[in-house]
Amino acid sequence: MSGNTFGKLFSVTTFGESHGPAIGCVIDGCPPGLALSEADIQPELDRRKPGTSRHVTQRQESDTVEILSGVYQGVTTGTPIALLIRNEDQRSKDYGNIAESFRPGHADYTYWHKYGVRDPRGGGRSSARLTAPIVGAAAVAKKWLQQQYGTTFKGCMSQLGDIPVPFQDWVHVHDNPFFAASGDAGLIAHMEATMDDLRKAGDSIGARIDVIAQNVPVGLGQPIYDKLDADIAYAMMGINAVKGVEIGAGFKSVAQKGTEHGDELTPQGFVGNNAGGVLGGISTGQDITVSIAIKPTSSIRTPRHSIDKEGNPVLVETFGRHDPCVGIRATPIAEAMLALVLIDHALMHRAQCGDVKVATPDISR
Amino acid sequence: MSGNTFGKLFSVTTFGESHGPAIGCVIDGCPPGLALSEADIQPELDRRKPGTSRHVTQRQESDTVEILSGVYQGVTTGTPIALLIRNEDQRSKDYGNIAESFRPGHADYTYWHKYGVRDPRGGGRSSARLTAPIVGAAAVAKKWLQQQYGTTFKGCMSQLGDIPVPFQDWVHVHDNPFFAASGDAGLIAHMEATMDDLRKAGDSIGARIDVIAQNVPVGLGQPIYDKLDADIAYAMMGINAVKGVEIGAGFKSVAQKGTEHGDELTPQGFVGNNAGGVLGGISTGQDITVSIAIKPTSSIRTPRHSIDKEGNPVLVETFGRHDPCVGIRATPIAEAMLALVLIDHALMHRAQCGDVKVATPDISR
Amino acid sequence: MSGNTFGKLFSVTTFGESHGPAIGCVIDGCPPGLALSEADIQPELDRRKPGTSRHVTQRQESDTVEILSGVYQGVTTGTPIALLIRNEDQRSKDYGNIAESFRPGHADYTYWHKYGVRDPRGGGRSSARLTAPIVGAAAVAKKWLQQQYGTTFKGCMSQLGDIPVPFQDWVHVHDNPFFAASGDAGLIAHMEATMDDLRKAGDSIGARIDVIAQNVPVGLGQPIYDKLDADIAYAMMGINAVKGVEIGAGFKSVAQKGTEHGDELTPQGFVGNNAGGVLGGISTGQDITVSIAIKPTSSIRTPRHSIDKEGNPVLVETFGRHDPCVGIRATPIAEAMLALVLIDHALMHRAQCGDVKVATPDISR
Amino acid sequence: MSGNTFGKLFSVTTFGESHGPAIGCVIDGCPPGLALSEADIQPELDRRKPGTSRHVTQRQESDTVEILSGVYQGVTTGTPIALLIRNEDQRSKDYGNIAESFRPGHADYTYWHKYGVRDPRGGGRSSARLTAPIVGAAAVAKKWLQQQYGTTFKGCMSQLGDIPVPFQDWVHVHDNPFFAASGDAGLIAHMEATMDDLRKAGDSIGARIDVIAQNVPVGLGQPIYDKLDADIAYAMMGINAVKGVEIGAGFKSVAQKGTEHGDELTPQGFVGNNAGGVLGGISTGQDITVSIAIKPTSSIRTPRHSIDKEGNPVLVETFGRHDPCVGIRATPIAEAMLALVLIDHALMHRAQCGDVKVATPDISR
Repeated sequence: MSGNTFGKLFSVTTFGESHGPAIGCVIDGCPPGLALSEADIQPELDRRKPGTSRHVTQRQESDTVEILSGVYQGVTTGTPIALLIRNEDQRSKDYGNIAESFRPGHADYTYWHKYGVRDPRGGGRSSARLTAPIVGAAAVAKKWLQQQYGTTFKGCMSQLGDIPVPFQDWVHVHDNPFFAASGDAGLIAHMEATMDDLRKAGDSIGARIDVIAQNVPVGLGQPIYDKLDADIAYAMMGINAVKGVEIGAGFKSVAQKGTEHGDELTPQGFVGNNAGGVLGGISTGQDITVSIAIKPTSSIRTPRHSIDKEGNPVLVETFGRHDPCVGIRATPIAEAMLALVLIDHALMHRAQCGDVKVATPDISR
Repeated sequence: MSGNTFGKLFSVTTFGESHGPAIGCVIDGCPPGLALSEADIQPELDRRKPGTSRHVTQRQESDTVEILSGVYQGVTTGTPIALLIRNEDQRSKDYGNIAESFRPGHADYTYWHKYGVRDPRGGGRSSARLTAPIVGAAAVAKKWLQQQYGTTFKGCMSQLGDIPVPFQDWVHVHDNPFFAASGDAGLIAHMEATMDDLRKAGDSIGARIDVIAQNVPVGLGQPIYDKLDADIAYAMMGINAVKGVEIGAGFKSVAQKGTEHGDELTPQGFVGNNAGGVLGGISTGQDITVSIAIKPTSSIRTPRHSIDKEGNPVLVETFGRHDPCVGIRATPIAEAMLALVLIDHALMHRAQCGDVKVATPDISR
Repeated sequence: MSGNTFGKLFSVTTFGESHGPAIGCVIDGCPPGLALSEADIQPELDRRKPGTSRHVTQRQESDTVEILSGVYQGVTTGTPIALLIRNEDQRSKDYGNIAESFRPGHADYTYWHKYGVRDPRGGGRSSARLTAPIVGAAAVAKKWLQQQYGTTFKGCMSQLGDIPVPFQDWVHVHDNPFFAASGDAGLIAHMEATMDDLRKAGDSIGARIDVIAQNVPVGLGQPIYDKLDADIAYAMMGINAVKGVEIGAGFKSVAQKGTEHGDELTPQGFVGNNAGGVLGGISTGQDITVSIAIKPTSSIRTPRHSIDKEGNPVLVETFGRHDPCVGIRATPIAEAMLALVLIDHALMHRAQCGDVKVATPDISR
Repeated sequence: MSGNTFGKLFSVTTFGESHGPAIGCVIDGCPPGLALSEADIQPELDRRKPGTSRHVTQRQESDTVEILSGVYQGVTTGTPIALLIRNEDQRSKDYGNIAESFRPGHADYTYWHKYGVRDPRGGGRSSARLTAPIVGAAAVAKKWLQQQYGTTFKGCMSQLGDIPVPFQDWVHVHDNPFFAASGDAGLIAHMEATMDDLRKAGDSIGARIDVIAQNVPVGLGQPIYDKLDADIAYAMMGINAVKGVEIGAGFKSVAQKGTEHGDELTPQGFVGNNAGGVLGGISTGQDITVSIAIKPTSSIRTPRHSIDKEGNPVLVETFGRHDPCVGIRATPIAEAMLALVLIDHALMHRAQCGDVKVATPDISR
């Protein structure tokens, strides 16, 4: 109820602050009998962790995960799985200057007004660092979904600021620091240069991220308020800095006619996927396709007008170590959120209907 | 859990099918002491109801609401408020031809695969008719929010298919059948002609809707998964036919720089609202601004390729009475969802922090 | 959250007041494909309804139920099932004298202080009349459990005031107005005379009720807070006037030794059932056995000392039509609550573990 | 949903197994601004911890608690408070003999059948050791309730096996190893001798525990399913080994008449408390009084008939370190559960009604 638990049947409750002693989560509802160890989780955390290129925050965190419970002799027991990640590289003195004033575009202002107290060190609870436990929990969800239904997840950056990044092939995603599905070396170089310029200028920029799930069972999603796409929108808009979410054709569907938008079916399968894999809030068995808009980082070195706690005008410059484009590390996070939504709906479907059905072929891919 | 309840503290559980005997809802959690009668609810239902112009479905429903409980001597008692609306104009025979096959772009396919049984009459549970009870419940929420904090809601259509509808003034919204905030008679005539052409062609079209809430208390929203904007995205994406949601600058924030996007503060208030009234998932006290993309209606008279329950190829034409643009009646629905999200978070904030604080001035309006 | 919904996966949200226009409920989460009509529900309502003997309230209510949604062509569709029961025999004038003062032992006092407003007519929301919708909803649950697992429910009165009612055989339960599992005509006559004397004296009395579920799957229940017995205790203590709950040996287990209490197992099954069918919060497959203590009715004709809303001393006599022993009609209600707990846990188990296992034989019966 | 979270607004999610690396919990929903450190929590853990007398398990655990999050500069921030307790004295080899068979009266049997896998070391998740995190979380709840409303909690053992322990005065509770509210040295000596005999005999015994809350605000509790007493029953029955729960007069109310049971009111307050502080599911402001029955420990050295996983007959003797009366350490646990129920309802009441009212005097104490 207080907003620190994600999911109903596969529930992940996270805790921790950016500069506290530790962050972590408790997963409640993981089905028993899944082979699981830290080795299943660490690689996903490594995809998200800071310090992997010069274009992201230089904070050094190993993000080493420890499983505290819920696994016996290498197998999940159906009881809560607690994951613990110790914070290692806190430099809280960097934040002294913003403890008393509010960064434009940042949660400083709202946390202060809501709670009357806040932990300003590294953004406290509002830090993107808190996506680490959720990525860890999603690694468990992904493994279960893969084993049960063959469901897989992929994601890429499709726009960096005003630079479009056309999709070429998923194989390229891990060959560049941006999760770009592009083998265009010139484009990558342009993106690198853009980021270097921004960093020098003390500014930041937004990004657009696309994620998909493949081999999704048909029938996941609840009418009429816990629709699969509604829960995906909730999950995605809840990621730090996200300002927009699209499913399938998204905002392009505004200008489409019904004869264009509605995906026809043949005995061989769907012939298009404007739906993004969801009709009436329930999965069709096609790929689930999602896009999100990520705003530019609010913590920048350029001085900006703001006020302090007493309401006096101040100029705020943010020092410390920040991602000049939070979108760069957002791809594994968006995949994680999608996986958590799907496992929750898969379990719910099992409760309600007793089984999960195989996917309908999608001949539009 | 099964997806027919919206909200946690101000919970609305709806029931009913398009062509069943009745639709309605139970509101649980309305604070006691609110003066309430059917006269507070009926006007909102009338804004949404079918048959108000030639551009919407011609089904004739008075949508007369009856309060069955929770009100004593004209005042809410804190116990559940049940609202009942009898269906009056069912013509189920219109749907005989689609009972055995699946309309492209429609929930027919997914309901069938999920449940193994479905009520095909008028779309059954998946019909947009089921937004009526939620609009009724939101009328209660709006009244309470207005009395407590002065919060108000407005909405308009900002795009019809590929026709942009520039915002002029809220006063125009009720002067045309489209909820357009425009006094441009030529534009309205163009929209009318477009709709007439579509109807004749047996086709449909999408729309973009903008809604705002004004005089919102600061501090509403929970980190880090029940963020105010996450819950708004959930609410909006859950409306029938919605494929995209934006808060504040939305997808435009992708191409913005941090120096442009982050709304600066002065002692007089915020000087911009790219945030859309939400920072770190918590309301700033500025206007909450939301946009949604609505896909074209899937039930159209133009024959389309599909399959029947046995997987055989069929051509599907949809007769019956349908909105050629479901977006036309979506404005009061989107306002309703926003109101329901806000009252839930207002009550939650009261639980957690004991009070609700007045809004910060927004000098950017 | 506001306490008018029972159950998480098979959720029943009730509404209505004793003297309002109607009472009813919405069942969300009933699995699709169950054959269902009013004829499945009405008999359970008839077992509970008032006016069936001179020992219960003489209010005349047919308690005729109407299914408003969720059933198509005689089969549940997986969407919400709304049940509506119109109130027919309200005599609100009977309650004029208690609108301004508080009956000792009654919810009058607490509702007033909680909400600042209350519907005094017939106890409003706190009336035992509100158990009717829950009994209706449980009829649906019972049918599903019976079809899936062969689970059945029985209940009887085991004590009326200070009169013990020894169990003889379930066949007797419907042969007397008390749900006594006894064929002892002398005992029944003694109970009748006791009730007649009480009614004349304007007093009331308590009762003890036992209920069991048979053919319960093994493995239902969640550690460590949603234990099956914890949820049963919650359900039973939530019935009007209940002050105590026991599972299995109950309070007798205090004086037992471990060598006596712990039910031994043999390859043929359990040789005792002190556990009441629950170990570690999870069903064993044995009979679930529950006992509850029901206090004497608080609405009695004997004048009692109390205060009015302003705190002045008053003498309160309650007129109107009341059960002199609310325990008499409690048996079907307790069965209903047990059925609702079991279906919720059966669905939850299906979500978590994918299947439900057959019961272990219980050779102790 | 999977049963490892207690509470809705002040939610405590626990994790850990008896012999795993650590146990702990995440508290979500603690109001901001409460001064808090480990020193507020440790004393409550020390009251519950093992090894404090020869009558309880001799396992040596310091139960040292570490706060991992949610507190900044000694004050709660409104974000999740994670508590971590490392296990120190696991001797898992003691449990080798019961890994393949089921102790009569123990969760071994049901966990195995539910999950198909279980951690047998020290009872795994079903161990009473898992009450430690809940006692830790309740220390936070108690502090907040005490500061807000002056609410306090007390508990004592009122029966040990067949030995009644008459209440004399709360001051005695900490002067003996049984939480007996008695200064009768002869009685205490008798209890000690009884326990010594049991331990030598390899047997165990039950107990009855009474707990009360004082200075409780009026108006806490939700009709009609989240009644305060229903939630108390749920909380108490969820404690390991509890088989019965009473509120106020409890099972004694069966034989009471209405003229005896209903507590009369005078301008000075209530003149009795058969209600146990709850009417219609809502607190009256009187003391909340609760009694629970705790069964004898199932893990005993006396050989007992049982079966192994394959269904073959076996004799089971339990070695390892066990409490011969789990009731002895149950008093602080029962207080903890009561505190968690009350804080949850206090926050809920604040959400719904905006304030909490002071208690009504209870002149019956």
